[in-house]
Amino acid sequence: MYNIKCTVEYDGTCFAGWQIQKNARTVQREIEKAISKMYKTHIKITGSGRTDSGVHALNQVFNYHAMAFIPEASITAGLNSLISDDIVIKNTEYASADFHARKSAISKTYEYIILNTAKPSAFYRNHCWHINDYIYPDALTKILELFEGTHDFSSFCKKRSMVDNPVRTINSTNIRQIGDFLKIEINADGFLHNMVRNIVGTALHVYRKKLNPEIIKNMFIAKDRSAAGPTAPAKGLYLKKVYY
Amino acid sequence: MYNIKCTVEYDGTCFAGWQIQKNARTVQREIEKAISKMYKTHIKITGSGRTDSGVHALNQVFNYHAMAFIPEASITAGLNSLISDDIVIKNTEYASADFHARKSAISKTYEYIILNTAKPSAFYRNHCWHINDYIYPDALTKILELFEGTHDFSSFCKKRSMVDNPVRTINSTNIRQIGDFLKIEINADGFLHNMVRNIVGTALHVYRKKLNPEIIKNMFIAKDRSAAGPTAPAKGLYLKKVYY
Repeated sequence: MYNIKCTVEYDGTCFAGWQIQKNARTVQREIEKAISKMYKTHIKITGSGRTDSGVHALNQVFNYHAMAFIPEASITAGLNSLISDDIVIKNTEYASADFHARKSAISKTYEYIILNTAKPSAFYRNHCWHINDYIYPDALTKILELFEGTHDFSSFCKKRSMVDNPVRTINSTNIRQIGDFLKIEINADGFLHNMVRNIVGTALHVYRKKLNPEIIKNMFIAKDRSAAGPTAPAKGLYLKKVYY
Repeated sequence: MYNIKCTVEYDGTCFAGWQIQKNARTVQREIEKAISKMYKTHIKITGSGRTDSGVHALNQVFNYHAMAFIPEASITAGLNSLISDDIVIKNTEYASADFHARKSAISKTYEYIILNTAKPSAFYRNHCWHINDYIYPDALTKILELFEGTHDFSSFCKKRSMVDNPVRTINSTNIRQIGDFLKIEINADGFLHNMVRNIVGTALHVYRKKLNPEIIKNMFIAKDRSAAGPTAPAKGLYLKKVYY
């Protein structure tokens, strides 16, 4: 039994997220359809994690098991020819038997993209969050740094999605200003549901309302979603890299 | 009677082009709907020219006449609030009575974007032409320069769209390599139907088939569409600027 690891890019705009659901176009379903067609048998895939409706991926990772051997490059090319063009398989490799796209992951990096211009863009309307008042990256950096480290992220998790252990460790945050774009990167050992969007939404809320950044410490203590700021839109979020 | 000049950006992906047609979503129709709603009377607009289905615009220009006075910034903001987000009004100004978006135009610049990478991109699938074999910009520049000057462009015009006078003057061609993208700019006093797409398609054909670039001179002489190369896809084409 071969264990195959694939890296995939997708534009989340026209998907109801990653995970298979009834009567919905999802990334997992589209990929499973293509793989099952290629191997001529039903094959299920395991993603490194779910992404929500409208969220994009630059390098999502999934694995699957198959009896038949197909060369790596032929899997990549074959799947890309079978799949719709808002999904692109970027790389395929044979992994060790114990590799598991979700359980083997050590950390993940998400990127959140803000378009910081006076007018919105017709071209980036589904691919970033447009904010028209100018954001000073240095000030936002200082706010984001308060999220670094090990915390109980209950206040930054979607209600009703709470898990047994809401403690996660953010290893790094980083903001780059590239032309009209602000790109916020967050690397953590794991993410709760909506965690990046809630952190970005809260950081921007603190910045724009000129609140004392120390308020974030109180948000952590509250362990209640309503204590933190709003959720940033899904369309600005990208799963950038999964580390194993 | 006021004469108003607007500059507009649009993502052509979900439009059947600029010009109003029966039972089709077109840019002109969407804008006229919004303007008519704002002025509470039916208003027609005049574009600098048509763009085909799937073709984008960074700075298309149109004008219209109205009896009521509305400040420029309010027109821009008002239209953007009424219009779908794949159209963005970038600027509005009151023009002299004799300004005509099409007839007053002296020249136009179109940009054609090629994504030159081994793998396609899920994100740019509707916004450039993906070519996976590496293109040397300098070699392509030499081919494109042969299109400069005043020529009969019959061989580069869509069949059945021929006009009385197929002579146009290309003032400049230019290629920039920006990361993985090749951006081809062509400025001319006017363009025949599909002219940019036919020039780009032919230039790439000559380049990739390693033909002698001098063959382009024969294509001009032939005055027959079938003498030239294929038509580049609409999705890579942008109306970049109209000069008055």
